[in-house]
Amino acid sequence: MATIFTRIIKGEIPSYKVAEDEHYYAFLDINPLTPGHTLVVPKQEVDYLFDLDDRTLAEMMIFAKKIARKIGEKIACKRVAVVVLGMEVPHAHIHLIPINSEKDVDFHREKLKLTPEEFQKIADLIQM
Amino acid sequence: MATIFTRIIKGEIPSYKVAEDEHYYAFLDINPLTPGHTLVVPKQEVDYLFDLDDRTLAEMMIFAKKIARKIGEKIACKRVAVVVLGMEVPHAHIHLIPINSEKDVDFHREKLKLTPEEFQKIADLIQM
Repeated sequence: MATIFTRIIKGEIPSYKVAEDEHYYAFLDINPLTPGHTLVVPKQEVDYLFDLDDRTLAEMMIFAKKIARKIGEKIACKRVAVVVLGMEVPHAHIHLIPINSEKDVDFHREKLKLTPEEFQKIADLIQM
Repeated sequence: MATIFTRIIKGEIPSYKVAEDEHYYAFLDINPLTPGHTLVVPKQEVDYLFDLDDRTLAEMMIFAKKIARKIGEKIACKRVAVVVLGMEVPHAHIHLIPINSEKDVDFHREKLKLTPEEFQKIADLIQM
């Protein structure tokens, strides 16, 4: 069965798309830790980031870098943190999280509730 | 002034080395979240991971992948998490953290206290 991320990439589940190319897809995390929290996924269904072959991994980081820099330009923050946990969805994904302090990276705090209009506004800001 | 990581790379400050090549260096975090918590740094002094040029970034991830896979083989854990926060030391670094649950990635909990012997044993296990 396709992962939820594959269904998002295929458009079967809607997402706030930030960037896409032949091999990767980026979209807003629907349960963001901070505004601008983005997920970067390979189109290839691989459970764990480091199961990707070297080239796909390397190009994914370069794809993520472009998005992180755009987030850093458009969203007020000190850094864009990079987090890969890989415990929830069996499809490798990189979290890009605009942060002002290390405390912003806390996956156990209550997630932000944003309206569709707020999500769309953020997606429009950082879209590539 | 050289960053603390550059001083570690040069051997001016001791570290439990895990891996090294021409461009990158990996060593045990002295304030680990879990046993096996490793830092991967480029020898080039760059403040933020995504300030690295594409090639240096890409090769750093491939270097980190090898170490993460070795950690995953040698340390009992479900995943090796990847975290870049970049708020503390102005020298880009990737945390590789063996985790059994997402809760293990909590930079505000008390860090592990390990003896030099325990650190050395872990370094010997995962050394490349």
